Amino acid sequence: MSVTTGIVLGAATYWITQTAVAVSAASGVLEAGRKRFDLFGMVIVGLAAAIGGGSVRDLLLDRPVFWVQDQTYLIVAIVTALLIFFLARRIPLPPRLFLVPDALGLALYTVVGTKVALAMGTPGLVASFMGVITGVVGGILRDVLCNEEPVVFQGTLYATLAWGGALALIGFYLLPLSTPWPELLAGGLIFLGRLVAMRWQIGLPKFHAR
Amino acid sequence: MSVTTGIVLGAATYWITQTAVAVSAASGVLEAGRKRFDLFGMVIVGLAAAIGGGSVRDLLLDRPVFWVQDQTYLIVAIVTALLIFFLARRIPLPPRLFLVPDALGLALYTVVGTKVALAMGTPGLVASFMGVITGVVGGILRDVLCNEEPVVFQGTLYATLAWGGALALIGFYLLPLSTPWPELLAGGLIFLGRLVAMRWQIGLPKFHAR
Amino acid sequence: MSVTTGIVLGAATYWITQTAVAVSAASGVLEAGRKRFDLFGMVIVGLAAAIGGGSVRDLLLDRPVFWVQDQTYLIVAIVTALLIFFLARRIPLPPRLFLVPDALGLALYTVVGTKVALAMGTPGLVASFMGVITGVVGGILRDVLCNEEPVVFQGTLYATLAWGGALALIGFYLLPLSTPWPELLAGGLIFLGRLVAMRWQIGLPKFHAR
Repeated sequence: MSVTTGIVLGAATYWITQTAVAVSAASGVLEAGRKRFDLFGMVIVGLAAAIGGGSVRDLLLDRPVFWVQDQTYLIVAIVTALLIFFLARRIPLPPRLFLVPDALGLALYTVVGTKVALAMGTPGLVASFMGVITGVVGGILRDVLCNEEPVVFQGTLYATLAWGGALALIGFYLLPLSTPWPELLAGGLIFLGRLVAMRWQIGLPKFHAR
Repeated sequence: MSVTTGIVLGAATYWITQTAVAVSAASGVLEAGRKRFDLFGMVIVGLAAAIGGGSVRDLLLDRPVFWVQDQTYLIVAIVTALLIFFLARRIPLPPRLFLVPDALGLALYTVVGTKVALAMGTPGLVASFMGVITGVVGGILRDVLCNEEPVVFQGTLYATLAWGGALALIGFYLLPLSTPWPELLAGGLIFLGRLVAMRWQIGLPKFHAR
Repeated sequence: MSVTTGIVLGAATYWITQTAVAVSAASGVLEAGRKRFDLFGMVIVGLAAAIGGGSVRDLLLDRPVFWVQDQTYLIVAIVTALLIFFLARRIPLPPRLFLVPDALGLALYTVVGTKVALAMGTPGLVASFMGVITGVVGGILRDVLCNEEPVVFQGTLYATLAWGGALALIGFYLLPLSTPWPELLAGGLIFLGRLVAMRWQIGLPKFHAR
């Protein structure tokens, strides 16, 4: 049982979160690598990707920022970033490698973010938006720091799935289901939805303003 | 009478604020449309434009973020973004269409932002800067997310008018004027100044560093 | 003796901080000048460079933002930005001119940021990261607002020195040294390290992801 700034997370969730931190940090390093940033730049972009979403959520909810009192998050992100940095100099690491763990991270971040916001008494729509922020803002920060258009705004379904899953989670809480079923169902929807969207290249409609 | 996180806003101001939220969200969607973002990307850029400035102000002042406890703001922004998205696919919507309501939004956001900061006891210059942040940071976030140089730094008078209006508001409070006269006068200066600046293309001096 | 939101800074540190604010504001204006932003854009980019890092630190640590109750910081940043703006239209101001004071600012911001975080009881790694944030986030914001890749991720040693100095400061606190020796030693390391890195073009390894 680990206590993280106010809400009690089961040990399983705590370690899956650390996995999500590691995977996001890796995605940040691989993106930063394409820009020829130096080692420090990669570590910062990796950190932004890994802890940016949860930080913005915590600031908006006026609760302690989750990584400030427990330095394990920083250690996991930094060690991962260094490992990937030195590994990628030797072995080609296709970004595709991280897509499945990243989908798992998206599911988990979104579920945890929505739950935290609900626990603080925000209205449902706001809570679901906090879930989305937790899931996608890290990736947006990563792309802004790399001076790129955020991929989450463009490719196959990603944030839309997070939002759908967050709303589903709130719906499941209205049903007579006990923990962890609502979380597992909502997280599973996001994770499987992401795998399906990637496999069949499913995206949202776009338009070009006239 | 609606209560928004600490300060009591008259019903008129509350609904004009919601109008400003809608107009800013629309401006975000139209900008995002030029980048071929998908529906979700547009909604997020619209939200950032609509609630970004007030959020940064509230974080800096360490007060509850205005849209977290009242989900009406999110609903207004999201519904507007969806409407504009589907409308703009059918009918050409020139961005010019939004310039006049946007000028109204700038005036209102700036006046409300300055007032909120003064109510929290900040010095005058800081309060006026909080007004500017409320008025223009949403547009800056919109442009950063679209990977563009912020237009507020470049075109006809915009933020300068906000700053002038905010300082004028503080001056009017020193005069024997009762509410809502200082607010109406300062807001009117910003709004009319913006119309004049757009009509005669009045801008600030620029320079190119040598 | 000046009191700044919770920690008591000696008068010397307070005025050196104001110098760092002025130098960072100047660097922001010179960068913004290359983008043909107008006067307001320059002032905002200057302000972001000068007070952005400390603001993000204070938000993450949930302490009052340092410039909100003492408007001297804003005055120093704005007056400097205006001076540089009008000066640079007449006289060529090479950005190199600011490199030495900027190195001093980096050293001071990092030491103050780390100290503030330690005083709030954060773990050592988090405190050192807060020092880095205080030292470099202003420059990152400046570059993001100018739609440029952050230079701090690319050039000669900069943030790495800040991080090293912050960790050294924490180490020095474990030794039987009384104030201000740990601060002077750590700050000196950052400042001299930066001069050496610029003189001999010392950078970190980079890689291009395959």
